[in-house]
Amino acid sequence: MEEPGFRDRADSEAPALARFGTVAIIGVGLMGGSLGMALSRRGLASRVLGCDHDPSSLQAAVRRGAVDEGRPLEAAVSAADLVVLAVPVPALPRLFGLIGPHLKEGAVVTDLGSVKRPVLEAAQALPYPEQFVGGHPLAGRERAGVAAADGDLFLGRAWAVVPGPSSRPDAVEMVAHLAQAVGADPVLLGPDEHDCLAAEISHLPQLAAYALAAAVARGASGTAAAGRGLNMARRLAGPGLHDTTRLAASPAGLWRDLALANRDHLVEGLKRLQSELAEVSRALEAGDGEALEGLFQQAQAARLALFP
Amino acid sequence: MEEPGFRDRADSEAPALARFGTVAIIGVGLMGGSLGMALSRRGLASRVLGCDHDPSSLQAAVRRGAVDEGRPLEAAVSAADLVVLAVPVPALPRLFGLIGPHLKEGAVVTDLGSVKRPVLEAAQALPYPEQFVGGHPLAGRERAGVAAADGDLFLGRAWAVVPGPSSRPDAVEMVAHLAQAVGADPVLLGPDEHDCLAAEISHLPQLAAYALAAAVARGASGTAAAGRGLNMARRLAGPGLHDTTRLAASPAGLWRDLALANRDHLVEGLKRLQSELAEVSRALEAGDGEALEGLFQQAQAARLALFP
Repeated sequence: MEEPGFRDRADSEAPALARFGTVAIIGVGLMGGSLGMALSRRGLASRVLGCDHDPSSLQAAVRRGAVDEGRPLEAAVSAADLVVLAVPVPALPRLFGLIGPHLKEGAVVTDLGSVKRPVLEAAQALPYPEQFVGGHPLAGRERAGVAAADGDLFLGRAWAVVPGPSSRPDAVEMVAHLAQAVGADPVLLGPDEHDCLAAEISHLPQLAAYALAAAVARGASGTAAAGRGLNMARRLAGPGLHDTTRLAASPAGLWRDLALANRDHLVEGLKRLQSELAEVSRALEAGDGEALEGLFQQAQAARLALFP
Repeated sequence: MEEPGFRDRADSEAPALARFGTVAIIGVGLMGGSLGMALSRRGLASRVLGCDHDPSSLQAAVRRGAVDEGRPLEAAVSAADLVVLAVPVPALPRLFGLIGPHLKEGAVVTDLGSVKRPVLEAAQALPYPEQFVGGHPLAGRERAGVAAADGDLFLGRAWAVVPGPSSRPDAVEMVAHLAQAVGADPVLLGPDEHDCLAAEISHLPQLAAYALAAAVARGASGTAAAGRGLNMARRLAGPGLHDTTRLAASPAGLWRDLALANRDHLVEGLKRLQSELAEVSRALEAGDGEALEGLFQQAQAARLALFP
């Protein structure tokens, strides 16, 4: 009930067919491809145009029904009522410069990146920055690319809608409707609030999973000679290790970029995680069962607060 | 293929009905209850006797079909061909003393605890320590108690079989067959090798999940006034945070005991995890994308080595 605006309106206003007109998806990987599939399947766009620097990805996107046709960047952008930038965050600043001159009057631009403050700043380079509204679907997979795309990827997931200081209200509404139309829950957030929350609920768990996977493999390798340790760890490993390290299978380059883009918030998050671990270590080394149980109880309460 | 003994034999030797005779399960919680259900469902015991210090748990275990009847400790033990100690690790030393005088000649004793070196040492108090073989099914749930028990809990899971220096070969074989009979994969390990591996693949992920849940809740709470931060985190949270913190819902007292019981190995594991996080922090603070990507790539390789 924190953000009544979008969700309440949805009930009274059924999605019209082709509501978003011509949609251009720039970057047809996992996220862009999934969005295209979700739009096409529900008949939410009159046309979905795709654009990608990798011709084979674009062909695969057409083959998978994620886009109706592939187009060069200028042609896709100039025909679009809604332009969705589904490229890695570091590629966005240059892309804003490239698409600016070709945007149709009144066209709305959004992105799917996991960090918003730097993206909104870069969007000021657009000729009409008020046409841009940041977006971040809280959805993903460990595998990248259109081959892993799924039209149901956004179902039941949150989708952060993050306007800039000058974003037009109708543009904000259109992005919220886009989220809703593909089954997500639009959540209106300011850029710093978003980036701080994203650091906590998404980027920090990712880095924790990487660190845990590396530490466990290193520890297990040391338990016995000739690779037996890692073999045994593999054989013994259950759902606990599987789930806590699942995110570590995610692409390293993508997460290098996101970590750097959200560096300040994430550094703070890492400090909090390191301080929790240091407290546990101290209690354990001291054999202090009471302190240990207190820390675990707080953590259990935290988990129940996050997932009631 | 590391431990051909048990698995190969299974194919040629089908489980006979009532193969384990009278089985006494001491402690009918999640683990003991699940084992009782697995035995009863498959007709693997002529009788399953249950014993618990909590009469209502024992009644629930009978009601759920986990045990055929409840018995006082001495009566259960003196009638049993196989005694399974399914109590928390710290309760085991006292229990060895209590059951010792009542064991039938030739009866085999095993446990289900997640730490093995201290348990094997405590088992030396039995009149015939060679009748004891340590066991550790790598299976569990966040919820405790017989209400959460499940006869399929062990299906496809590893089950560490950890003999002491004097364990009788036929006792080792019986425990391995018990694991196999309820659908698990028996893995023969020495006590130190077991405890080190358990620290890595089970205890460290547990502590990492606790620390992450606590850090995330603390960080999210700080993002906005009046509880909005935690509410927002809850609304935005996706499968990544869910899976990385799932274990944090586990009972604090149980994990205090296990952490203390496996303290030395776990302290080393925590150091490795802290050192991985410190390296990530350093690279991130320095804005060193190359170092960050290198760390993430190593972690990704580690995850793929653990779960090919």
